[in-house]
Amino acid sequence: MTVWLVGAGPGDPGLITVRGQALVRNCDVLIHDRLVSPELVAQASGALIVSRDGREQEEINRMLVELGRKGLEVVRLKGGDPFVYGRGGEEAIALAEAGVPFEVVPGVSSLAAVPAAAGIPLTHRGVSAGVRVYSGRTAEASGETVLVFMGLHELARVCDDLVAEGFDPSTPAAVISRGTLPDQEVVVAELGELAAAAEEVSAPALVVVGEVVSLRDRLLAGVLQESAV
Amino acid sequence: MTVWLVGAGPGDPGLITVRGQALVRNCDVLIHDRLVSPELVAQASGALIVSRDGREQEEINRMLVELGRKGLEVVRLKGGDPFVYGRGGEEAIALAEAGVPFEVVPGVSSLAAVPAAAGIPLTHRGVSAGVRVYSGRTAEASGETVLVFMGLHELARVCDDLVAEGFDPSTPAAVISRGTLPDQEVVVAELGELAAAAEEVSAPALVVVGEVVSLRDRLLAGVLQESAV
Repeated sequence: MTVWLVGAGPGDPGLITVRGQALVRNCDVLIHDRLVSPELVAQASGALIVSRDGREQEEINRMLVELGRKGLEVVRLKGGDPFVYGRGGEEAIALAEAGVPFEVVPGVSSLAAVPAAAGIPLTHRGVSAGVRVYSGRTAEASGETVLVFMGLHELARVCDDLVAEGFDPSTPAAVISRGTLPDQEVVVAELGELAAAAEEVSAPALVVVGEVVSLRDRLLAGVLQESAV
Repeated sequence: MTVWLVGAGPGDPGLITVRGQALVRNCDVLIHDRLVSPELVAQASGALIVSRDGREQEEINRMLVELGRKGLEVVRLKGGDPFVYGRGGEEAIALAEAGVPFEVVPGVSSLAAVPAAAGIPLTHRGVSAGVRVYSGRTAEASGETVLVFMGLHELARVCDDLVAEGFDPSTPAAVISRGTLPDQEVVVAELGELAAAAEEVSAPALVVVGEVVSLRDRLLAGVLQESAV
């Protein structure tokens, strides 16, 4: 394993994960976002420290590939979570296509942590049963990813509802059971066939619907270590 | 401080936060969800361990209040993040109304971590610019919380768009700048007045719109420690 895409969390340095902190402390090279806590960057003692600031995304992708090819232990430390407005997918695909082994270490996204720090729960019984997230910077219309928690028991209904709402039955979709655990199970199918395909899957499971599911093949590309697949 | 509502993360015990792990290791009482990693529970050596399994939510709320009143260091360890389908808001309100000091320590939600572990980014340039999250178990229609990342620069447009889409201009809303950091700033206003109220706020900031914002007063109730406000 040579490159880790690590989420640093929302700001407070105590909100990085235990795994992420261990990787930061032991890496050869740390490439960090501008907004990552200086206390975390300082923990990469002995590492070459590179700020992402002022560099194009393509340059970062290239650096990750080149450093990874040298067999160095490289941590790409990103604010929040790498896959929530973190452009981690682009870095992951660049690494996968170059055949450089990598792993994604999720972080606490601002998404729930920042409202929590202001005393606001995202969901609350009788008040809010769902969350919609978007970016103020996205001018062009682009797709949306749908996540359904606790959707396994009524998966057929959940999928039918999405089709009735306008989703094409051929939209890529997945059910992920026991995610992040060693016995994780992933079933990928078109939305219209997901319920039948996931019949044998056990709870707890998360349902993901949207074109991002089709990025999976490019991202995995045979190089992620088992624990991340 | 006596009661901590701590997110354990999505399953992998390495995905708890550094702060959360330190609290687990030093608590007097640990009340944990069934799905929390046994490795994490085992780290609360010396603590009284209580499983949430088979108990009503009201009983848990009562236990937290009673143990907190005794001045014990109590960790309520919850799967994922306490405020994303975690019923953490209910526990927080019970504690606040009883005058028991508490703090929320966010966790890595399954929301992004589980798709990541399956090789699926939630957002990806040109593929998905937003995320919609709901629960398959919610039968009754209930409100939705809207989060806008990077929405500060065009806040007036963002708010106008939401009103045009059907949100009442009187919907509670907030802008949270530098969330979780010591210089965090929170501006709360009705949606129709948010852009004017948040004029002086600096980036990075997250915009939150929905009735959950009105829970803030009940949750804070003067007892959260400064770092969590």
